[in-house]
Amino acid sequence: VGTLHSKRRQLLPKVKGGTEETTTGVLRLRAMEKDRALKYPIIAVNDAYTKYLFDNRYGTGQSTLDGILRATNILLAGKNFVVCGYGWCGKGIAMRAQGMGASVIVTEVNPLRALEATMNGFRVMPIAEAATIGDIFVTATGDTSIIRKEHMQRMKDGAILANSGHFNVEVNQKDLAEISSRKRNVRPNLDEYTIKNGRALYLLAEGRLVNLAAAEGHPSEVMDMSFANQALCVEYIARNDRMEPKVYEVPKEIDENIAKLKLGSMHIKIDKLTKEQKKYLSTWELGTT
Amino acid sequence: VGTLHSKRRQLLPKVKGGTEETTTGVLRLRAMEKDRALKYPIIAVNDAYTKYLFDNRYGTGQSTLDGILRATNILLAGKNFVVCGYGWCGKGIAMRAQGMGASVIVTEVNPLRALEATMNGFRVMPIAEAATIGDIFVTATGDTSIIRKEHMQRMKDGAILANSGHFNVEVNQKDLAEISSRKRNVRPNLDEYTIKNGRALYLLAEGRLVNLAAAEGHPSEVMDMSFANQALCVEYIARNDRMEPKVYEVPKEIDENIAKLKLGSMHIKIDKLTKEQKKYLSTWELGTT
Amino acid sequence: VGTLHSKRRQLLPKVKGGTEETTTGVLRLRAMEKDRALKYPIIAVNDAYTKYLFDNRYGTGQSTLDGILRATNILLAGKNFVVCGYGWCGKGIAMRAQGMGASVIVTEVNPLRALEATMNGFRVMPIAEAATIGDIFVTATGDTSIIRKEHMQRMKDGAILANSGHFNVEVNQKDLAEISSRKRNVRPNLDEYTIKNGRALYLLAEGRLVNLAAAEGHPSEVMDMSFANQALCVEYIARNDRMEPKVYEVPKEIDENIAKLKLGSMHIKIDKLTKEQKKYLSTWELGTT
Amino acid sequence: VGTLHSKRRQLLPKVKGGTEETTTGVLRLRAMEKDRALKYPIIAVNDAYTKYLFDNRYGTGQSTLDGILRATNILLAGKNFVVCGYGWCGKGIAMRAQGMGASVIVTEVNPLRALEATMNGFRVMPIAEAATIGDIFVTATGDTSIIRKEHMQRMKDGAILANSGHFNVEVNQKDLAEISSRKRNVRPNLDEYTIKNGRALYLLAEGRLVNLAAAEGHPSEVMDMSFANQALCVEYIARNDRMEPKVYEVPKEIDENIAKLKLGSMHIKIDKLTKEQKKYLSTWELGTT
Repeated sequence: VGTLHSKRRQLLPKVKGGTEETTTGVLRLRAMEKDRALKYPIIAVNDAYTKYLFDNRYGTGQSTLDGILRATNILLAGKNFVVCGYGWCGKGIAMRAQGMGASVIVTEVNPLRALEATMNGFRVMPIAEAATIGDIFVTATGDTSIIRKEHMQRMKDGAILANSGHFNVEVNQKDLAEISSRKRNVRPNLDEYTIKNGRALYLLAEGRLVNLAAAEGHPSEVMDMSFANQALCVEYIARNDRMEPKVYEVPKEIDENIAKLKLGSMHIKIDKLTKEQKKYLSTWELGTT
Repeated sequence: VGTLHSKRRQLLPKVKGGTEETTTGVLRLRAMEKDRALKYPIIAVNDAYTKYLFDNRYGTGQSTLDGILRATNILLAGKNFVVCGYGWCGKGIAMRAQGMGASVIVTEVNPLRALEATMNGFRVMPIAEAATIGDIFVTATGDTSIIRKEHMQRMKDGAILANSGHFNVEVNQKDLAEISSRKRNVRPNLDEYTIKNGRALYLLAEGRLVNLAAAEGHPSEVMDMSFANQALCVEYIARNDRMEPKVYEVPKEIDENIAKLKLGSMHIKIDKLTKEQKKYLSTWELGTT
Repeated sequence: VGTLHSKRRQLLPKVKGGTEETTTGVLRLRAMEKDRALKYPIIAVNDAYTKYLFDNRYGTGQSTLDGILRATNILLAGKNFVVCGYGWCGKGIAMRAQGMGASVIVTEVNPLRALEATMNGFRVMPIAEAATIGDIFVTATGDTSIIRKEHMQRMKDGAILANSGHFNVEVNQKDLAEISSRKRNVRPNLDEYTIKNGRALYLLAEGRLVNLAAAEGHPSEVMDMSFANQALCVEYIARNDRMEPKVYEVPKEIDENIAKLKLGSMHIKIDKLTKEQKKYLSTWELGTT
Repeated sequence: VGTLHSKRRQLLPKVKGGTEETTTGVLRLRAMEKDRALKYPIIAVNDAYTKYLFDNRYGTGQSTLDGILRATNILLAGKNFVVCGYGWCGKGIAMRAQGMGASVIVTEVNPLRALEATMNGFRVMPIAEAATIGDIFVTATGDTSIIRKEHMQRMKDGAILANSGHFNVEVNQKDLAEISSRKRNVRPNLDEYTIKNGRALYLLAEGRLVNLAAAEGHPSEVMDMSFANQALCVEYIARNDRMEPKVYEVPKEIDENIAKLKLGSMHIKIDKLTKEQKKYLSTWELGTT
């Protein structure tokens, strides 16, 4: 998109539209739209319910644990499992870690999310406190330096650090190197850092996304819905002659249709509203005005 | 609100503003706003995150099971527990029924919700199919005639019917009376209907909201957040001289502040963004535009 | 049994046999057997798999939470729920409390049970430590003075104390009275004790079994299996002319038959071993000798 | 052991004792004891609580899912996951599969186990019925030909077959070959069989134990307890001069001591009985005789 709008502008007239898969991309495109710089319509596939709700929670949730197991072969049952960040990814990771028998601790900066984590039965506390308790730490915040020197120095011998949220900045590796006297690779994606206090910390996949680096990323059952959004949105653009150069939501019909197709592929049938039910719903809405 | 805007309009000049707790009320007020009939500002407390997210899921979830237990003293473990509707209430009920050892079945008309229920490990099927399997049925749809004659006639002997979603119309009681040869009250909030095919069906609390009728409604830990929204929004209106006669969202600051106060009352501390983290977040957003 | 063996011995010749439902009773009868004082055969129904495994875990598990809800209408989600004792009752209570969204803490004296609780994802710690964290405490140990003065004095304002294990001695009420300046009944089965440090503690059902006192005890789906054991064991004795005056286990056939009948009543079918499978099992056992 | 007792009998006088890790081994040794063929004492490490309870449930439970993920990278959430056999291994697998968001179905031949699975919230049905519903099948029975031709022919396209219980006989591979028109290896440990009805079935790890073949077997946190039993039992034999040539249980003190050491290594503290509690327990037992 960037190239088309800068170096290859002569191609722009031939482009009817596009789609965007990522959060970052959508942010960028909305800024272009605001500046009236966007020259063709784009559908923000990232924001489809069948995309963001499923791949973050179920995809990242499972594949993060998968990555940790492949890198360490550690037993999750009975471990204090610290999830930093309780967005959709964090929710998925926490849910699956509990499902594997771990005792989950959540750290957050947002009080609403912290409260939701609490109500879901997880312990919530500051990272400085969790640092002394945790056996496994996974960051999923989208921010930087979540786990820092002052936390690492208080961790238990053998603590495991992984990131599943963003770039390799959530675990501060400069800090980790600084307080370590030794580093050695134990097995693929598993580096042992000997801290100057004598304890060992284990960093997975060099702090990169552990589900991509140490496992295989999202299962195909999650990606298929993203790709279906891409395909059907491209078709939508192709069939539609009057879209202005804006960022569009995925049409609700496409989103729902993908959910229907997915259910069908799983041999699952659902109900339809009866006439009476449709009428009741509309009467209700009318009735209350 | 209705009276003030119709019979007692002379009082309107003295009213600075108001708040509205319920979904229905908010719908009605938005319609009034649209018609320019609304004469003072109203804050839609119902839509606060600390209101709708917590009372529906955790409040209704728990109190619905509580109502069923008080009315029947049935063992939930091992039962096929059918939840009709997978909105926030249905999500809460399903989660808690599974937590009590039941095997949960969800019925839905919305494919996105149906898919989410599936991914959460619940069986999803049409009500006609669930009717033959379920031991306990709870409706939470906000619509009418969810459980009808054709379903009741296929139910197992001893099946239990309850409603937790809306008025007493979700289980069609006219249908139930029509196919029954006998009705008797077994204990408070528990009526036995002998169907003409010889089987017994049990209706809880005459189809009214089972969590209110047979238990005690939301626990105070849920209501306190709603009331905090009411109080702080009234204060907000009192301190604010320039609100137009519209329906307003609960200010984000109030919503977050309530979550903070709630966490504090539970002795739970959370993190704050460091300067570096704040900068990273803003740089990131800037950087990508 | 006691009367027959002491004051009414003349009736003993007419008694063909008996059954015993409780742990205590079985202990007593085994002692009588040892002393050759037992004059007719007794089947220890208490020890049937279909009795002890189901009523303690599923029956007490559910009904304990039911009792707490009826006595307090408290929200369980987000609470620190302390279970003292991780026998079958404690296991059931812990499982159900987690299922309702609580964060469960287990206290134990037995390291094997403590380890099992840990592996099941619960926090394990001494009661002295749990005392400062817990919102709700339930004892299920079969021993005395589990919660004592020194624990009560460290509890949070508003902590709830209940017993579900044994007589009303697990929460030391003499201690509670001693450190309180005031006691008042708030609602049925809920007494508020104002501790001299100014905090309020709430004792449920006067420390008696909360599932019996504040709820309705085991659901019928649990009791039916106990009673089936009683009935079928009596029949077994009636049909059997050569039983010596000893304490007998419930015959395995009866235990399994009750499980089969129960499954049948729930419309659940299971597999049978094929000829090949039976042969393989026996060959395997033979083959390895 | 076999060699010592047959070809190298001259060494027997020098052997003070031994330990046995496996179920099979223990069975064989008990037979030898019965025949008075056993010439030195053996401690059956397999039967220690800290061995069989933890490695089967937590070890096999986790590593079976790990093996399935490594072999297939399939999403577990929303899948119908069939566990054949509800012994300790099956219990662990079912618990973890539910924890990953699957909807679990259990097949059993034992009605007591079938009932327990039901009460734990799982669907129980014959394998012939589960065959048509399941997405993933895992056998853990210790018997042969659990999944046979007649089941395979009714399975859904894409169904996955794995074994985690015993030798590679639980999924009948002769049957699978017979009804297939084509077999191809898709990726390591994943073979696709094209059934003559056109559907594809996927067999993991050639039907061998999927947790050993496709993952890394039990995590070290499980094995350490087995090895501790080995070591402490050998020490026990070395220090004990009067053991007869029998098969012995692991002394309860050793079993409990290992649990204590394990808890210590996890920084977990537990309570001790007070004097009053010890007295109460003994009085109680005395009192009731």
